[in-house]
Amino acid sequence: MGTPAGFTLGELAKTLGATLEGDPGRRVTGVAPLDAAGPEQISFLIDARYRPAAETSRAGALLVSEQMSGLAGPLLRSSAPQQALIALLTLFHPPAPTPAGIDPLAIVARDARVDPSASIGALAVIASGAVIGPRVRVHPLVYIGPFVEVGEESVLHPRVVLCEGVRLGRRVVVQPGAVIGGDGFGYVFDGGGHRKIPQVGTVVIEDDVDIGANTTIDRAMLGRTIVRRGTKIDNLVQVGHNVEIGEHSIIVAQVGISGSCHLGRGVIAAGQVGFADHLTIGDGAVLGAQAGVHEDVPAGERRLGTPALPMLQAKRLFASQKHLPDMSRRLRAAERRLEQLESRLGIARSKTGESGTADER
Amino acid sequence: MGTPAGFTLGELAKTLGATLEGDPGRRVTGVAPLDAAGPEQISFLIDARYRPAAETSRAGALLVSEQMSGLAGPLLRSSAPQQALIALLTLFHPPAPTPAGIDPLAIVARDARVDPSASIGALAVIASGAVIGPRVRVHPLVYIGPFVEVGEESVLHPRVVLCEGVRLGRRVVVQPGAVIGGDGFGYVFDGGGHRKIPQVGTVVIEDDVDIGANTTIDRAMLGRTIVRRGTKIDNLVQVGHNVEIGEHSIIVAQVGISGSCHLGRGVIAAGQVGFADHLTIGDGAVLGAQAGVHEDVPAGERRLGTPALPMLQAKRLFASQKHLPDMSRRLRAAERRLEQLESRLGIARSKTGESGTADER
Amino acid sequence: MGTPAGFTLGELAKTLGATLEGDPGRRVTGVAPLDAAGPEQISFLIDARYRPAAETSRAGALLVSEQMSGLAGPLLRSSAPQQALIALLTLFHPPAPTPAGIDPLAIVARDARVDPSASIGALAVIASGAVIGPRVRVHPLVYIGPFVEVGEESVLHPRVVLCEGVRLGRRVVVQPGAVIGGDGFGYVFDGGGHRKIPQVGTVVIEDDVDIGANTTIDRAMLGRTIVRRGTKIDNLVQVGHNVEIGEHSIIVAQVGISGSCHLGRGVIAAGQVGFADHLTIGDGAVLGAQAGVHEDVPAGERRLGTPALPMLQAKRLFASQKHLPDMSRRLRAAERRLEQLESRLGIARSKTGESGTADER
Repeated sequence: MGTPAGFTLGELAKTLGATLEGDPGRRVTGVAPLDAAGPEQISFLIDARYRPAAETSRAGALLVSEQMSGLAGPLLRSSAPQQALIALLTLFHPPAPTPAGIDPLAIVARDARVDPSASIGALAVIASGAVIGPRVRVHPLVYIGPFVEVGEESVLHPRVVLCEGVRLGRRVVVQPGAVIGGDGFGYVFDGGGHRKIPQVGTVVIEDDVDIGANTTIDRAMLGRTIVRRGTKIDNLVQVGHNVEIGEHSIIVAQVGISGSCHLGRGVIAAGQVGFADHLTIGDGAVLGAQAGVHEDVPAGERRLGTPALPMLQAKRLFASQKHLPDMSRRLRAAERRLEQLESRLGIARSKTGESGTADER
Repeated sequence: MGTPAGFTLGELAKTLGATLEGDPGRRVTGVAPLDAAGPEQISFLIDARYRPAAETSRAGALLVSEQMSGLAGPLLRSSAPQQALIALLTLFHPPAPTPAGIDPLAIVARDARVDPSASIGALAVIASGAVIGPRVRVHPLVYIGPFVEVGEESVLHPRVVLCEGVRLGRRVVVQPGAVIGGDGFGYVFDGGGHRKIPQVGTVVIEDDVDIGANTTIDRAMLGRTIVRRGTKIDNLVQVGHNVEIGEHSIIVAQVGISGSCHLGRGVIAAGQVGFADHLTIGDGAVLGAQAGVHEDVPAGERRLGTPALPMLQAKRLFASQKHLPDMSRRLRAAERRLEQLESRLGIARSKTGESGTADER
Repeated sequence: MGTPAGFTLGELAKTLGATLEGDPGRRVTGVAPLDAAGPEQISFLIDARYRPAAETSRAGALLVSEQMSGLAGPLLRSSAPQQALIALLTLFHPPAPTPAGIDPLAIVARDARVDPSASIGALAVIASGAVIGPRVRVHPLVYIGPFVEVGEESVLHPRVVLCEGVRLGRRVVVQPGAVIGGDGFGYVFDGGGHRKIPQVGTVVIEDDVDIGANTTIDRAMLGRTIVRRGTKIDNLVQVGHNVEIGEHSIIVAQVGISGSCHLGRGVIAAGQVGFADHLTIGDGAVLGAQAGVHEDVPAGERRLGTPALPMLQAKRLFASQKHLPDMSRRLRAAERRLEQLESRLGIARSKTGESGTADER
C-alpha cells in the first residue's frame, strides 16, 4: 500500500517536525515494516528490540528518536517519534472519505433521524426513534435499536449491535461484532428457578471511546453502564451491568469486569484480568495480565496475580514459588535435624506444645 | 423512563404484597437508582452496601426488606424484597408487545413453518425446514439454519446464529451475537496435518434457558450438546462439543467448558473459570472466579484456584502464599542456626544424610 | 440422522480398511454415541474411558482399535481407529453439495469477482474489489470487505466478517461470528489522551486453517498478521496485531495472543492461555490450560502456570503449594524449637545477625 507519488524526505521532515539526516530530495512511496521495506519505502525504529532488524533493513529511510545512535542511511529524527509515526502513517494512508447518504438497501425506520452527512451501509437496520449524527459512518449489517443515539463522526463497523436506548458520544469507534446494551446478568432464585431481574437501564459511551471486536457491554439494571471519555477497550472484553469505567482508561483483550464495578480515570487492565463485582478501582491503577482482582484497589496502585497482590509483592511471590517444592524438602530436613538436636540435649517435645503454637497464631 | 401516570404507594404496596410506611396517596412515576432518583421516583435498598446512598437519596419512596431499620421517609417493606423488585420493575417497564407477523424484508424459506403469532424481524434469515413456535420473537439480522426448532415465546436478539438442526425449548432468551451450533473442535493428527472429525451432532437448549451475548455453544460430534432447563449463561462463554449442563445452573461470563464435560444441576461457575475436558461436576458444585478445574468435583463441593482446590484450602493457600518470600528467608536463617547448633554440639552432617531424607519422601 | 439404506458391516470393513468380527451381511443405518445407539446403528470405542458405556451399549456394531479386547458383538477393528471414525462419519454424513451461484438477495459489488462455481448466500455483502475463488461457500449475512481475497473451497459460515484487504487461502473454514481484520489495539498517550496508531496492515490466513466462532484476529499495524497453513483455532480466541502463528498449530478456546508474538510450527496452546506481547514461542511448544506466558519458550518445551514454568516444575509446585499453610505453621514451630535450643546452649541471637542473613541473599 502507499501513494504512487509519495513524498520527499524533505517534505516528510517538514510535515513531521523531524530533523533529516540525508538527502532531502530522496522520495519514498510508502511505509513498511523493517524487514519488508525496500529502498522506495520508509520504515521506523522506536522500540529498541527491533534494532537488529533496523541494521539489516533495506528501507530507504528510517524514522527514529533523537537519541537513537549508530544507524547509517537517511534518518528522520523526532523528539516524539510515536506521534510522528502516527502522522507518517496517516499521510500515506489517509482515511477513505465517507460517502454521505443512505444506501438504498439499508433499512431505516420512518421516524429515525439520520443526518444527511451520515453514511448508512447496505443492510444496516436503524430502528424507530434512533438519532444518527453528522458524518457518522454505519457499515453494512449493523443493527441500531430503537431510540439509540450516535454522536457525530462515530464509526460502527460491520455487524455491530447497539440495543435499545444506548447512547454513543462523538468519534466513538466500534469494531465489528461488538454488542452494546445486551441484558445484564441478574437473577433471583425463588426456590423453583432463577427469575430474571428486568434490565431496564441503558449504556452510555462518551466521546472518543474505542470498543473492540466482539466485545460485550451490558445495559444497567437501572440507570446506566458508563464508559467515559477517551477510554479504549480491546476485543472480547466483558463489561457487566452498572459498571463505570473512568476517562482515558485502557482495557486490554478478554478482560472481564463484573457488575457494579467502578474503575477510575486512567486505569490500565492488561489482558484476561478479571474483576469481582462491586469493586472500586482508583485512578491510575494498573492491573497486570490475568490478575484476579477481588478487593478495592487504591488510586495509583499496581496489582498482579490471583488473588491480586501489590505488584512487587506478586513478583517476589512468583520468583520464590518455584522454589516451594525444594523448601518443602528442606523444611522436612530441618525438622529431622531439630529432633536429633533435641534428643541429644534430652529435650522432650509434647503434642500440647505444638497445639499451643498453633493456637497463638 | 417510566409511565407518565405512575402508581400511588398504596397501589404499589397492594400489588407487591408489601407493607407501606407512609402516605398511600403519594404517587411515583418511575424506578431509579438511589443516587439518581428524585421525589417522583421510587428506589430500593436491598444490598446493605448501598445504605449510605439510601440515606442521602432524594427518592420519593424506598422498597426495603422487613428488617431494614433506621430509614426515614416512605418505605415499602417486603419479606421477599428481590422478588418485589422484579415485580416493581416489570410494573414500570412492561415488556413491549411483540408485533405478530413476518416483516416483508425477512427472508423465510418456503418450507419453513412459522407460527402466525411469531414475530420475524427485517433481514432475519430462516432456512429450509425450520420450525418457529407461537409468540417467538426473532429480531432483525438473526440467522436460523435448516431444520432448527424454536419453542414458544423464545426471544432471539439481533444477530443471533442458530446453526443447522439446533433445537431450542420454550422461553429461551438468546442475547445478541450468540452462536449456537458451530462445529466442535475435534481433530486427528495424521502425520501430514490435523484432520477434522466431522461434527455431525447437534445442540439442544431446554426451556427457560438464557444465553448471553457473543457466547458460543458448539454442536456435538455425535449426539447432543445439552443445556438443561432453567440454566442461565452469561456473555462470552465457551461451551464445547458434547457438554451437558444440568438444570438451574449459573455460568458467568467468559467461562470455558471443554468438550464432553458433564455439569450437574444447580452448578455455579463464576467468571473466567476453565474446565478441562471430560470432567464430571456434581450437583450444586460451586467454582470460584478464574478457577482452573482439572479433575471431577463431587456434588455440593466448592473449588477455587488453579489448579482448583477445596475452597477453604484455596483461601488458606491464598492467605499464606503472600508470606512465601518471607518464609524462604526465614527457612534459610533457620538452616544457618541449625548449622551453628550442630557445630557447637559436634554433630557432622553428611550429604548422604540429606539425600537419604529426600529419598524417603 | 443417517442414510435410510445404510451399509452392511462387510461394506464398511472394506471401505474403512478394517477387520470385521461378525456377520458381514448385517446392516447399519447410522452412527450414534454408545449410550444412544440401537441395533440399527454403529458406534465406536476409541477412548478407553468409555469402556463401561461400550459394554452396556445396544449398538449393532462397534468400531474399535486392533488392541481392544474383551468386547462381544460385531466389531470393526482398525489400526487407525480415529481416521476410520472420520471416514465412517463422512460416509453417513456426506457434506451437502454447495449450490453454485449468487442468491438474488445477496449484495455483490459490481467490481467484485465471484467465481461462477462459488455459492453466495442471501444477505451476504461482498464489497468492491473482492475476489471469491472457485467452490467457495459464503453463507447468509457474511460481510466481505473491499479487496478481500478468499481462496478456493473456503467456507464462511453465517455472519463472519472479513475486513478490508484480508486474504484467505484455500479450504479455510471460518465458523459463525468470527471477525478477521479488525483494527489492532495500538495507542500513544500524548498527555491529553490516547491517540490511535493507524492500523494499515492486513491479515493473511493460509490454506487449511480453521477459525472458531466469535474469534477475533486483528490486522497488523503495518505488514501482516499471519496464520500459517493447517493451523486450527477454536472459539473466542484473540489474536493481536502483527502476530504470526506457524503451521499446524492448535489454539484452543479463549486463548489470548498479544501483539507481535511469533508462535512456531506445531505449537499447542490449551484453553484460556495468555501470551504477553512480543514473545517468540518455539516449534512444538506446548502451553497448558490457563498458562500465563511472559517470556520466550524454546522449541519443544512445555509450560504451565501463571507465570508459566516448565511443566514438570509447575506440577511439582501445584502438588506442594497445597501444603503451604501447613509449612508456614511448621516453620514457625521450628523457629520456636531453635530458640529453645539456643537458649539452652546460651547462644544469643542478635537482630543484626538476622539482617546480615537477609543481606547475604
